[in-house]
Amino acid sequence: MWNYKKILQYPANIKKQDPEFAGLVITQFGGPDGELSAGIRYLSQMYAFPVAEGKATLNTIGTEELAHWEIIATLFYKLTQGITPEVLKEAGLGGYYVQHGRALYPQDAAGNPWTAAYVQSMEDPVASIHEDLAAEQKARATYEYLIDQTDDPAIIDTLSFLREREVVHFQRFGEVLDLLYEYEEDND
Amino acid sequence: MWNYKKILQYPANIKKQDPEFAGLVITQFGGPDGELSAGIRYLSQMYAFPVAEGKATLNTIGTEELAHWEIIATLFYKLTQGITPEVLKEAGLGGYYVQHGRALYPQDAAGNPWTAAYVQSMEDPVASIHEDLAAEQKARATYEYLIDQTDDPAIIDTLSFLREREVVHFQRFGEVLDLLYEYEEDND
Amino acid sequence: MWNYKKILQYPANIKKQDPEFAGLVITQFGGPDGELSAGIRYLSQMYAFPVAEGKATLNTIGTEELAHWEIIATLFYKLTQGITPEVLKEAGLGGYYVQHGRALYPQDAAGNPWTAAYVQSMEDPVASIHEDLAAEQKARATYEYLIDQTDDPAIIDTLSFLREREVVHFQRFGEVLDLLYEYEEDND
Amino acid sequence: MWNYKKILQYPANIKKQDPEFAGLVITQFGGPDGELSAGIRYLSQMYAFPVAEGKATLNTIGTEELAHWEIIATLFYKLTQGITPEVLKEAGLGGYYVQHGRALYPQDAAGNPWTAAYVQSMEDPVASIHEDLAAEQKARATYEYLIDQTDDPAIIDTLSFLREREVVHFQRFGEVLDLLYEYEEDND
Amino acid sequence: MWNYKKILQYPANIKKQDPEFAGLVITQFGGPDGELSAGIRYLSQMYAFPVAEGKATLNTIGTEELAHWEIIATLFYKLTQGITPEVLKEAGLGGYYVQHGRALYPQDAAGNPWTAAYVQSMEDPVASIHEDLAAEQKARATYEYLIDQTDDPAIIDTLSFLREREVVHFQRFGEVLDLLYEYEEDND
Amino acid sequence: MWNYKKILQYPANIKKQDPEFAGLVITQFGGPDGELSAGIRYLSQMYAFPVAEGKATLNTIGTEELAHWEIIATLFYKLTQGITPEVLKEAGLGGYYVQHGRALYPQDAAGNPWTAAYVQSMEDPVASIHEDLAAEQKARATYEYLIDQTDDPAIIDTLSFLREREVVHFQRFGEVLDLLYEYEEDND
Repeated sequence: MWNYKKILQYPANIKKQDPEFAGLVITQFGGPDGELSAGIRYLSQMYAFPVAEGKATLNTIGTEELAHWEIIATLFYKLTQGITPEVLKEAGLGGYYVQHGRALYPQDAAGNPWTAAYVQSMEDPVASIHEDLAAEQKARATYEYLIDQTDDPAIIDTLSFLREREVVHFQRFGEVLDLLYEYEEDND
Repeated sequence: MWNYKKILQYPANIKKQDPEFAGLVITQFGGPDGELSAGIRYLSQMYAFPVAEGKATLNTIGTEELAHWEIIATLFYKLTQGITPEVLKEAGLGGYYVQHGRALYPQDAAGNPWTAAYVQSMEDPVASIHEDLAAEQKARATYEYLIDQTDDPAIIDTLSFLREREVVHFQRFGEVLDLLYEYEEDND
Repeated sequence: MWNYKKILQYPANIKKQDPEFAGLVITQFGGPDGELSAGIRYLSQMYAFPVAEGKATLNTIGTEELAHWEIIATLFYKLTQGITPEVLKEAGLGGYYVQHGRALYPQDAAGNPWTAAYVQSMEDPVASIHEDLAAEQKARATYEYLIDQTDDPAIIDTLSFLREREVVHFQRFGEVLDLLYEYEEDND
Repeated sequence: MWNYKKILQYPANIKKQDPEFAGLVITQFGGPDGELSAGIRYLSQMYAFPVAEGKATLNTIGTEELAHWEIIATLFYKLTQGITPEVLKEAGLGGYYVQHGRALYPQDAAGNPWTAAYVQSMEDPVASIHEDLAAEQKARATYEYLIDQTDDPAIIDTLSFLREREVVHFQRFGEVLDLLYEYEEDND
Repeated sequence: MWNYKKILQYPANIKKQDPEFAGLVITQFGGPDGELSAGIRYLSQMYAFPVAEGKATLNTIGTEELAHWEIIATLFYKLTQGITPEVLKEAGLGGYYVQHGRALYPQDAAGNPWTAAYVQSMEDPVASIHEDLAAEQKARATYEYLIDQTDDPAIIDTLSFLREREVVHFQRFGEVLDLLYEYEEDND
Repeated sequence: MWNYKKILQYPANIKKQDPEFAGLVITQFGGPDGELSAGIRYLSQMYAFPVAEGKATLNTIGTEELAHWEIIATLFYKLTQGITPEVLKEAGLGGYYVQHGRALYPQDAAGNPWTAAYVQSMEDPVASIHEDLAAEQKARATYEYLIDQTDDPAIIDTLSFLREREVVHFQRFGEVLDLLYEYEEDND
């Protein structure tokens, strides 16, 4: 089970609202390569994972992705809080507003509701870990694309932290893969 | 952020494997009215929720739903662990096996990947809380339908606990609704 | 069976075209909390509904939602009829135009085709009626969000009528819920 | 607007329950080529249809498809009403039961929720009418496939009526196409 | 099996980049009535098609649609290659960019990932060929809508070629239908 | 463009029909990790791929996946051709039959229509190649799961060939990744 601790893993000190960017960053809340995808993917894979160290890594990283999901939600919230409907419409969020107001909804930047079709979870550990390595690379790339779309240092600061974590996770999954190959060798 | 604590909120002391039932109970892992729907729904709604007590309730219940999600996953895992491919096929899980092995995948009992189209999150607090009241009733009904499909006391024990929690959550959301109406009156 | 009567339940006397608003109001034609969702939801639930009065209400309201669906379609049509492709593109409807011209297509404001994943239909009457109460609240909120996005009195007039009807339906479903609780008490 | 008349367009005099067949016939309630697809398709296309006779035909046939949708729902209901959960499971409807009980839900025979991606609606009348001709042929074929799966004369009787209507609709849409070509010639 | 030949079936001699139009033309890469829909539809239908000439036509046209798919991809690539993230955002492709950069992704103009729900494939040859006739008409109309959205002669030239091919395919499928009716007559 | 050559890349010499297995193997025709996913993924990624050798590999492997898609289709067709509706129903293909007869439809083993949500295509080459490495591992695992579900040597022979090819593709993509790292080093 999980306990909630009322603190962000990394601050989102937004000073300037930017609904247009909010409409892009939401892809990391509910898009194909966002934090929800990552969290659900790892926390689904862990149960049948055959090697204990890998299972623990999936749990640890999966739980951290939920913390990142919270950071992205906080970003979106701060970027849009109290913005008028008219300004939201001008920023391309008119459709979002009429369906959700300014609440968070797990969708990508085009408005597609999140779907588990984005993730795979297989008992085969080598397949699952490659899925995870790919996930981390795609999340990293998405953060870079997002950073390309803003010049606000506060946003860049938070996104850079999150990007860095994906790089670290990629390395951790690489270590799990090494373990798996050892484990498979030992069991041959 | 969330911390993981390696203990189930309620035990899943399965003694007898039952892949056929596993194929049904997975709806609470990734189906329309399952624990993932509940968790994502509440944890999405909370950010823009205008009343502090309601926000706290959404966070608390949303976090508990993740714990329930873990219980369901544990159930599925214990009901299928090590079952041969042939027996899985006979139990109607042949298609599941060829796509996921015995790993957990967030889908419903028909194999539909989870989609956020099942949930709504709106800044309007009265609308969101009614969405949540409905969610709890639908989850309760799903647990009752699941209990109708088994006579294994160990499974029924775990599902009955989860069903009970939905009833409690329904009451808690009812209290939030009362608060909201008070709050709206005070602000008129 | 249904008979069509060539009259709108409430007029849509649009004087000024507004393709941009058309791109928002379409959410009530084919979005998550729109009139199609409502109609299909109630007209699906009614068959197995165990209490006669509730069944009748589901039929009556479901049929009325089809009339509202027609009003929304008429609105969209009048707001866009004959508008040039270029103006549609400027209004953010370029993608809509290349896929449908100016015909009605059941999608939300982001272009998601309508999906039955938005609705639930259960034999459990308490669960279904709570689904319906939530549906009415979400539809009401959507109309309010839409009204926030326009200052055209003719559009507001029609949307206000539709919003009012959702409030009335909410009350009617509340009465069905009372009946259900009585019915359940009598059968205990 | 539509008025409901409490009579089926054609009776569904089912004498023998058959949950297994219910699990197949539901494709005409919420599957790709079912009555809901037909109804929503025609009733969406009609608004922007440029020729009055075609518009009227779309309205008439679309309204009739709703009547057929009701017949299919009645069939499903009669084939499953009161069947025990265990028997439903044996008939392959265990997953359906835990998600909906014995209520009607707009899905296909594999459990896919209905999606508007099945239908197209375009202002181009020639394209739309060809969509409709195809729809009628696919519905006809589906009824034939369903009839292949039963030898119950009561079911066959109802399905044969519905199949016949698709053939008639195909002819009606063929006439609309002729009109369109005339109309286009006149306007060249 | 297929062999790739490094030549476009028809050139896409784009001289002027136009990311806004790229965001529309992508519907023919991954939208409901685009070239991917056509290719997958025909190449799926062919295996169980009961008449040899029809099978051959499905194969030939299906393979040609892949060539058209390549032309559309080339168009999109040339219209967007090297365009800066900021300009992409102004052109309404900000969401696309953060999810895919400037790579091709099979989606429609609203960002919906391609789904096989757009296509039907039935053993019934008359139903399948009507599906195909409709597909060609819808593709033709889509090209016309696209041409309405540009005045760049180079784009129009390529789209006109593709539009023409849909008309030819429509005629070819008409011939298959004639064959089918003959074939059915002979087998009665 | 592509040319079709009327020969299978590897034979599918099925001697014994097996509709139940057909219902599983279809996941490689239209499921998440099947040949269609692979083909569309690579053939979408190639256009914006920044390194020529990688682009060529994507094209070559993407084209080969279409050949594998054809092999799987041939397998399904031979395993089901002419099987009676009743036997199909007993084999769990009743729902498939009423929607498609015995034609090929791009769906997974649970009946989900193929969706591009299964694939990602990004301009970032490192992310895309990791997506591809993962895809090959998941396809390999799926073939192994399928082989677990049959003891027919003819089926196993064909599936083993396809499994082997995924292993080879994985190695080829590994080589592209090495190239990419060199290329990135050279450009730093």
